[in-house]
Amino acid sequence: MACCHHYFEPTEGGDNAFSVDASSITFGRGCLAEAGTVARALGIGRIAVMTDKALRGQPFFEKVEKALTAAGVDVAVYDEVKVEPTDESFQAATRFAAESKADGFLSLGGGSVIDTVKAASLYATYPADFLTYVNAPIGEGRAVPGPLKPHIACPTTSGTGSECTGIAVFDLLAMKAKTGIVSRALRPDRALVDPDVTASLPANVVAASGFDVLSHALESYTAQAYTKRKAPGDANLRPMSQGANPWSDLGCREALRLLGIYFARAVADADDAEAREQVMWAATLAGIAFGNAGVHAPHGMAYSVAGLVRDFQPDGYPDAEPLIPHGMSVIVNAPSVFRFTAPACPDRHLEASGWLGADLRGAGEGDAGEVLSSQIVALMRQTGMPNGLSGVGYEETDLAPLTEGAYPQRRLLDNAPREISRDRLTDLYRDALAYW
Amino acid sequence: MACCHHYFEPTEGGDNAFSVDASSITFGRGCLAEAGTVARALGIGRIAVMTDKALRGQPFFEKVEKALTAAGVDVAVYDEVKVEPTDESFQAATRFAAESKADGFLSLGGGSVIDTVKAASLYATYPADFLTYVNAPIGEGRAVPGPLKPHIACPTTSGTGSECTGIAVFDLLAMKAKTGIVSRALRPDRALVDPDVTASLPANVVAASGFDVLSHALESYTAQAYTKRKAPGDANLRPMSQGANPWSDLGCREALRLLGIYFARAVADADDAEAREQVMWAATLAGIAFGNAGVHAPHGMAYSVAGLVRDFQPDGYPDAEPLIPHGMSVIVNAPSVFRFTAPACPDRHLEASGWLGADLRGAGEGDAGEVLSSQIVALMRQTGMPNGLSGVGYEETDLAPLTEGAYPQRRLLDNAPREISRDRLTDLYRDALAYW
Repeated sequence: MACCHHYFEPTEGGDNAFSVDASSITFGRGCLAEAGTVARALGIGRIAVMTDKALRGQPFFEKVEKALTAAGVDVAVYDEVKVEPTDESFQAATRFAAESKADGFLSLGGGSVIDTVKAASLYATYPADFLTYVNAPIGEGRAVPGPLKPHIACPTTSGTGSECTGIAVFDLLAMKAKTGIVSRALRPDRALVDPDVTASLPANVVAASGFDVLSHALESYTAQAYTKRKAPGDANLRPMSQGANPWSDLGCREALRLLGIYFARAVADADDAEAREQVMWAATLAGIAFGNAGVHAPHGMAYSVAGLVRDFQPDGYPDAEPLIPHGMSVIVNAPSVFRFTAPACPDRHLEASGWLGADLRGAGEGDAGEVLSSQIVALMRQTGMPNGLSGVGYEETDLAPLTEGAYPQRRLLDNAPREISRDRLTDLYRDALAYW
Repeated sequence: MACCHHYFEPTEGGDNAFSVDASSITFGRGCLAEAGTVARALGIGRIAVMTDKALRGQPFFEKVEKALTAAGVDVAVYDEVKVEPTDESFQAATRFAAESKADGFLSLGGGSVIDTVKAASLYATYPADFLTYVNAPIGEGRAVPGPLKPHIACPTTSGTGSECTGIAVFDLLAMKAKTGIVSRALRPDRALVDPDVTASLPANVVAASGFDVLSHALESYTAQAYTKRKAPGDANLRPMSQGANPWSDLGCREALRLLGIYFARAVADADDAEAREQVMWAATLAGIAFGNAGVHAPHGMAYSVAGLVRDFQPDGYPDAEPLIPHGMSVIVNAPSVFRFTAPACPDRHLEASGWLGADLRGAGEGDAGEVLSSQIVALMRQTGMPNGLSGVGYEETDLAPLTEGAYPQRRLLDNAPREISRDRLTDLYRDALAYW
């Protein structure tokens, strides 16, 4: 692991320290039954449980509701969270949050639900014009004024890691762009990660959310070293996305190793409980890692890939509206990006390829980008992912709007290990149009 | 890693979930300079800085004091913390804490200092008879009534991991026994881990504290699986020492791997900054891991090894009084214990041996205890550790009082992967009398 040590060599003006943290998580089969005692311990007497209509019909919803009631916690349910939320759906949820008079929140769902609760709790507690807390330059990027009410996050997909982060992502309808709100204050206070919930997930949902996990781990592992980011004048201003560091490396490595063994199995067979549990654990580790290191270009590019969707409708998702699931909008960019980033830290790209199952015999540093990209493409084909951007409906003429939409995502693009100019970004999208 | 998966198989009545957590830590050269901004962010206007006289003379003390003052934080200094603290020294520190009118604490020192601040903060905030919060059966084991004032822990040895735990250990003078206070509420709010502080440590201190780290990692990795501990009726009562689990495994593995590479180098050469930094990082990881999984017999046995000291005086430590440094009091037991525990999870013992540098060629499961013990003994000899219990002044006639002193430490002994009866404990001490 000589590479890793070398990767963190001090640089002039660069940061000299990194923060180590993790959300407070309980992981294990059946742990949703602990929702009531956890809520009580957080001092919650009345709780707003937020989910969507499909999840409300699942047995695990009833399990959570029963656990809360048994612990003497009053429950108010909101089941209108929108998959791939928007400013409008955030505001509808905020109205519910304010009117519910709840003194705490429980989110039961994927990233859409967890992100919605983060935003609803924020705007219900500190009312403001919607753009106030939204990332600059689209919003004002104002700091969250203080602590939020306790939030227990219960993820139902093995994907987003939203339970580990202080990020809430949404579509700003007027601009047809994805953007977000970012603050440590948004991080859920507790997470209950119960692999039993994944048994009922369609294969395509496991695949898309699993690729989100895979890219969290790959991006955090290949992110710019924390020592190359400018040292913060005030230590309290060290960003959440601090770049790759020895702490995030640990979670990335284990997540990639587990995905190499279990990911394809988890997609192929809903009854493979072991594989689905291990992918859920990989998602948790990658969530902790990327909450600490930050992701980079594949996620940054995904904002406009998802935001500019025309008519793509994937299997396994609500079919009312066109939608590119988050993990898909990320992974279509990944092989193109890692071909580009490999020269910055070829050892890391090769190691990752090996954990994901690539044959490294005879591979040298110059092959690192190609080896990793090919391995990702092989996994995409094996799990029925679309063939790059063309597979989700984009073509050459979309490169300009895709670039325009993603270029402002500097928080993410600047966390890549190589500089990404506007032209480079267009090239990365072009190389992502088709992989086979 | 087939063993690990198998190790966590569900058992009838056993726990089905584990908690994932980590203290909030900043790690990096020079990060003690962040003490002021961190204190400010925690809302501290006046801080009690607690340390000992030797550390007060170090340049890093001045660095911390300057950082606090520059941030406008009032500083009250207490430099009378005792190495291997006692109920008396805890109470003297409590008087200072109460009189200081500080609204927060900073501990600058090894485990003795950090533990002293935990206790002083507790008793200053919630005054009570000294035995009130002390572990049963020696004390009443009463729960800490509420939150404590913010505590920033700044470890100066690469050892105890006290910055990551809610444990404060001391000698109860009247009983000539070590015991402790254990509560999540005692866990420091923040830690600043600055490897620069280790440059001035004597070799023997690096060795003893490094063996503490090594044993944290080995004990947490070989602890009883969390699935074998009885499920808590109330999830809030899941103990801090929950047994080995996939989260603690991650930190243990990396700590052992790093110690295998850097430990002997860090002891041998104070100028080997790379090795000392990596051992400090291993200490942090092992601290997070054992704060989550718990340690077992080598630490449980160490309570009486240290408590019954007669005239042992190690190099590199204050020579006023006889003293068996914590890490030494632990590691003298370790080879004996791991010979005994290996049959419960031989794969884990073999893996750990490999990370520590043992040659595993031809080694089978039946050799696991011997291989690991021999590797520890080799490291002990290489770094000038005493030859087992006889090396710190004990003989055959001490086996009974050593057993009596350690047998009540059920929290630790019951976390071992095999049952430890009173007779077994005596055998473990006997086998620890001499190793070469």
